[in-house]
Amino acid sequence: MNRIDSKKNPTVKAIKKLTTPAGRKKANQYLLESWHLVGEALQHLPTTQINLILATDQQLLQHQAAFHDKNVTVISNEVAKELGATSTPQGIFAVVNIPKQRQFPQSLQGAWLLLDDVQDPGNIGTMVRTADAAGFTGVIFGDGTASQYNDKVLRAMQGSQFHLQLFRTDLLPLVKRLHQQNFPVFGTALDPNAQNYRDVQPISDFALVMGNEGNGMQPELLRQTTNNLYIPITGQAESLNVAVAAAILMFQLHQT
Amino acid sequence: MNRIDSKKNPTVKAIKKLTTPAGRKKANQYLLESWHLVGEALQHLPTTQINLILATDQQLLQHQAAFHDKNVTVISNEVAKELGATSTPQGIFAVVNIPKQRQFPQSLQGAWLLLDDVQDPGNIGTMVRTADAAGFTGVIFGDGTASQYNDKVLRAMQGSQFHLQLFRTDLLPLVKRLHQQNFPVFGTALDPNAQNYRDVQPISDFALVMGNEGNGMQPELLRQTTNNLYIPITGQAESLNVAVAAAILMFQLHQT
Repeated sequence: MNRIDSKKNPTVKAIKKLTTPAGRKKANQYLLESWHLVGEALQHLPTTQINLILATDQQLLQHQAAFHDKNVTVISNEVAKELGATSTPQGIFAVVNIPKQRQFPQSLQGAWLLLDDVQDPGNIGTMVRTADAAGFTGVIFGDGTASQYNDKVLRAMQGSQFHLQLFRTDLLPLVKRLHQQNFPVFGTALDPNAQNYRDVQPISDFALVMGNEGNGMQPELLRQTTNNLYIPITGQAESLNVAVAAAILMFQLHQT
Repeated sequence: MNRIDSKKNPTVKAIKKLTTPAGRKKANQYLLESWHLVGEALQHLPTTQINLILATDQQLLQHQAAFHDKNVTVISNEVAKELGATSTPQGIFAVVNIPKQRQFPQSLQGAWLLLDDVQDPGNIGTMVRTADAAGFTGVIFGDGTASQYNDKVLRAMQGSQFHLQLFRTDLLPLVKRLHQQNFPVFGTALDPNAQNYRDVQPISDFALVMGNEGNGMQPELLRQTTNNLYIPITGQAESLNVAVAAAILMFQLHQT
């Protein structure tokens, strides 16, 4: 069993680089933190390719059963602090290969969430987690939307990336194509002239597009949708948080 | 017009202390950051007592009209960075008096959100903002729930604290009293034996209780409610983010 005690160890330095977009791209790997996420990854072998598991003595002892046939590198608390995103890390990590994107389906089935230039990693991760809870089939990250391998996105997804199909693509040609295939695409707009979401009957196969936190959806994309929805605001708030709006719409539109 | 250029200035040091709970308590003041929030505070004078407005030259120029009869202290970018919560602050702040809590009403009217030991400031602020958007009357912070004057709570509320009644109290005696007054109190539970929220008809006067992120509502409190609701999860996610769950419930229960 390997052991790393110093945060100056070259492996630690290499792993630390996975917390940046450039480092992830270069290594084609990302870092998972916490037992919840590492445990989910272990349940999704071999689709998920784990390169390295790192655990403190305490974490190793606690999850012995799950690790019995795995090669675990034991790390000191100092190393855990160096790699962790918080000041009191749990002390368990996995280095995972970034998979090749699967072939994008010719046509979609089920409920899909499309993210158009969403910026905040917490919002993105929360929307993926909510899509999972609402029984959605997948989430499509439009160009401009932050990476699914960002540590804050990973934390907020709470493992839902293992339950859903995630893709990244340019949304404009996709929405045009869905429209041609008569697959309903609902846009979202802060516009009382759009359709009140409460007037839409729940359906099983559709796409819902959420836009950028400050600017909403791209105007070109709004023009390509089947229909645009709005959530009526009855108080004095100017708008809703994007992850909150997405949740209200997903649970209204998809009631299987 | 006063001017502060150095972050070592004693006033800057004193204001910086307002970013901690102890500092806020000692001074009985809190710090608002960003034009959106300072502008909302200016619209709510004299109920909101502003002690000091600090702005960079650029912000002063940009909001001259709003500041015409106000005493503004001009600050350097260095001071703005020292006081700001982010690395690129807007450069506008207000030091506001913490008001005495208003007399707690003998009986409640309208829709109220109750927060039972909610920890994450972003979740708390987002729930207050959503309650505002859903036309709620107020939010009651139960003991254990993070402070409404925490900078991350303030940022996520987006000014909704100026539109709603906010109180802090022990929830257990309150919920008992509401129950005696036949005021409906809905608890929330991750328990399929609870009532599916979709089976509840929208109503105008009620309280909705959201619990702690990890542990949910206190068991004693769950036993005191009129009814406990759950949101059916159809995918593989274990749970919903608390602010997401609150949003789904608030927009379902309160449809004025």
